[in-house]
Amino acid sequence: MPQAILSAQSRPLRSAAELASIITTVYERIEGDRHRNCWIYVRPIEEALAEADALLQRAEEGEVLPLLGVPFGVKDNIDVEDMPTTAACPSFEYVAAQSARCVERLTAAGAICLGKTNLDQFATGLSGTRSPYGTCSSAANDLYIAGGSSSGSAAAVASGHIAFALGTDTGGSGRIPAGFNGIVGIKPTVGLVSSRGLVPNCPTLDCPSIFCNSIAEGRILLELIEGFDDTDPFSRQRIASSSPSPRKFQFGQVSAGHLNSFGMPECNDLYTQACMRLSGLGGQARQIDFSPFAEAGEMLFSGPWIAERHAAISKLLDIDHGELLDVIRNVLSAAARFSAIDAFAAQHRLLKLRRQIRSLFEEIDVLVVPTAPRPFTISEMMEDPITLNSRLGYYSYFANLVDLCAVAVPNATLGNGMPMGITLLAPAWRDHALLDLAERWLPDAKAGLFDLKVYPQAAS
Amino acid sequence: MPQAILSAQSRPLRSAAELASIITTVYERIEGDRHRNCWIYVRPIEEALAEADALLQRAEEGEVLPLLGVPFGVKDNIDVEDMPTTAACPSFEYVAAQSARCVERLTAAGAICLGKTNLDQFATGLSGTRSPYGTCSSAANDLYIAGGSSSGSAAAVASGHIAFALGTDTGGSGRIPAGFNGIVGIKPTVGLVSSRGLVPNCPTLDCPSIFCNSIAEGRILLELIEGFDDTDPFSRQRIASSSPSPRKFQFGQVSAGHLNSFGMPECNDLYTQACMRLSGLGGQARQIDFSPFAEAGEMLFSGPWIAERHAAISKLLDIDHGELLDVIRNVLSAAARFSAIDAFAAQHRLLKLRRQIRSLFEEIDVLVVPTAPRPFTISEMMEDPITLNSRLGYYSYFANLVDLCAVAVPNATLGNGMPMGITLLAPAWRDHALLDLAERWLPDAKAGLFDLKVYPQAAS
Repeated sequence: MPQAILSAQSRPLRSAAELASIITTVYERIEGDRHRNCWIYVRPIEEALAEADALLQRAEEGEVLPLLGVPFGVKDNIDVEDMPTTAACPSFEYVAAQSARCVERLTAAGAICLGKTNLDQFATGLSGTRSPYGTCSSAANDLYIAGGSSSGSAAAVASGHIAFALGTDTGGSGRIPAGFNGIVGIKPTVGLVSSRGLVPNCPTLDCPSIFCNSIAEGRILLELIEGFDDTDPFSRQRIASSSPSPRKFQFGQVSAGHLNSFGMPECNDLYTQACMRLSGLGGQARQIDFSPFAEAGEMLFSGPWIAERHAAISKLLDIDHGELLDVIRNVLSAAARFSAIDAFAAQHRLLKLRRQIRSLFEEIDVLVVPTAPRPFTISEMMEDPITLNSRLGYYSYFANLVDLCAVAVPNATLGNGMPMGITLLAPAWRDHALLDLAERWLPDAKAGLFDLKVYPQAAS
Repeated sequence: MPQAILSAQSRPLRSAAELASIITTVYERIEGDRHRNCWIYVRPIEEALAEADALLQRAEEGEVLPLLGVPFGVKDNIDVEDMPTTAACPSFEYVAAQSARCVERLTAAGAICLGKTNLDQFATGLSGTRSPYGTCSSAANDLYIAGGSSSGSAAAVASGHIAFALGTDTGGSGRIPAGFNGIVGIKPTVGLVSSRGLVPNCPTLDCPSIFCNSIAEGRILLELIEGFDDTDPFSRQRIASSSPSPRKFQFGQVSAGHLNSFGMPECNDLYTQACMRLSGLGGQARQIDFSPFAEAGEMLFSGPWIAERHAAISKLLDIDHGELLDVIRNVLSAAARFSAIDAFAAQHRLLKLRRQIRSLFEEIDVLVVPTAPRPFTISEMMEDPITLNSRLGYYSYFANLVDLCAVAVPNATLGNGMPMGITLLAPAWRDHALLDLAERWLPDAKAGLFDLKVYPQAAS
């Protein structure tokens, strides 16, 4: 068993009364935070309490359960056995016969799934405002978006409803909401964690992601869920390339000319300060040309990949039957503009950009970007849902297209109370080396592993 | 230096007179075989003789030149410095400023490139009849096609013009002509050999290939040209998976219901006999379901990948200016039928087929197929160029799409004098293990490495 998981296993065993008290507390919080629209489905408390008892019994009989009794949530485009999956589209709802592989791994380790969290419909969006189950607001400020598409997962962790959550990430959905809720968001290399049991979005770019409160927790969770899955056609065999994270490291800093806060310069200042702090931690900044990243990012929603989304979603639901939100239908309608020739030409261009970026990563160990350019209020988002959504992805869209792994970590707080994060990125398969580096930025929380935390404590 | 290359290096050094005699002989053969249309460009003999002298001089000064003085040819969609590249389209012609990386590696080892060989225009075809430089006929029978698209490379090796040749393979172009000329054709894993300096066809599926007379030679040549190339966006990093080829091995045999000789049952009989001979060599036959291979193969020319070809070629040449052969224009015109949604949906389907085929390769070490279903005469081919072309690819189209490596080897001779080969296939990156297996089928020729051989001696 990997070292990180053993450290989880060595947590002191809680008593039945302690577990019951935690579960009761979180159900009270969930009830009290209904206005935040974190959840689409919450399991009856009786079930959760019974499961805690059964798990304790198994542990007492000697079973190894490193996540014993830890409550977690699952984004509602990931199947959990016997729970409804909606992908935020009520007519799409079905009850899952089997859990996604990542969920299976966590419940097998003793974690208790409390329910399914809200998201932008079919994971198409970065705002958390595209759901018939209500707009999800940031745990830090109810006027602001939680970010999406994994809005509910991130807001529920930051609200202390759960110790961690699963999300998914295609163009930033596992990072943007971590940033706007002051928590950690881990986006693995695409194909490292099986996507069996996920509602497809852009299947060649989708991956499950992790929201939690510390890097130490994230490492344990990643070790539990990662690994090749023969039954998932999008799972990939790892290429050995993880190098230990050096004490002294080079990091790529977005040059001033490419920084874009879309009208909130305070955000750029926080980023610049973060880079200075990184230098104090052993990092040496290198100004990098952001244009290949920006070009790749634009391909995701302005280029033919929208047709991949269309190909994946249209099989699931006849999109002409009025079941989609208008904004989602508008986004998907662009798919028809692209020919197969466009698709292949864009894929060839992308491979060239990947090579350019690979060369760049020979000069740096990690690229550091703001997690999002700036926060938006819910009402700003509602007024201009497509333009503002694409602005949110300026620093995130490119990652999966150019085959990077990423960790979003808290950085600082804006005058309006909103947390702003930074994201560290590295080439595919360096996930664990990246976590080592992220841990220098965010040393282990003094509080215990998998304790529940309510923002702003979560970010401290 | 790898063992195989050292064995080439240990060949006895030829004298200047011997080298000159070999070169004079091959130029006489090339002249005598003009009707076979193997070559598009042949270098002046004086240049070849001068290069041989210069190489001998370097060897005498101690330079390691494992291929010293070995004459070879290069398919005319691969650049050779200072020679014209046409891709069998005269108006496309340019003089290459730099050799392709695979060519560079061979000339650096002392091989002498004699010129550029004929091919189906833009490598689009499997027959060798689609070239304005004339139809290439088999070295075994002038009435029959040489197979394509690397027609000239294979026919020139089998005609004793050269000791080996480079070709390319997208859907069988490195295997079909080996089969119809009774020689060895090695199709590496896509991305194992750099495609820098190739005229693109379907860039995500293209790879350089090798034609030669023995497995021992093929191993040396592959070791010289393989390896990741940072400057080629389509080069791939090897995943360690080569396992030594077992003494006892399981091979997949196409079940009788899926064998298709398109009207020449004698060909099926030769295949069945080959499988019996393989059993005598330590193999245990397993009947396999060929349908996932057939489905993947149909995608190459009936599915959206024709749009990849269009995307790659249309950038090189404005195809509306009457410079393309009618048959090529007809093939490419199908590209417009496919949308980006079709392209992504087909890619998703293909990934599922790859996984299915991967599972199948857990049961077998190697898949054995006829290299081509049957030979066609040149006049048959001219009468029905598109239908017969697609029949030729029945056992070859799928290989690159489902990420296999392959070696085509001679098997037996038909009543009409045409050689028929079999092809061994294995999952990506098992190229060398596959060569080990192929060597049991075709033990080292008793004659020296890289001696010139004229069919039928070549196949013995």
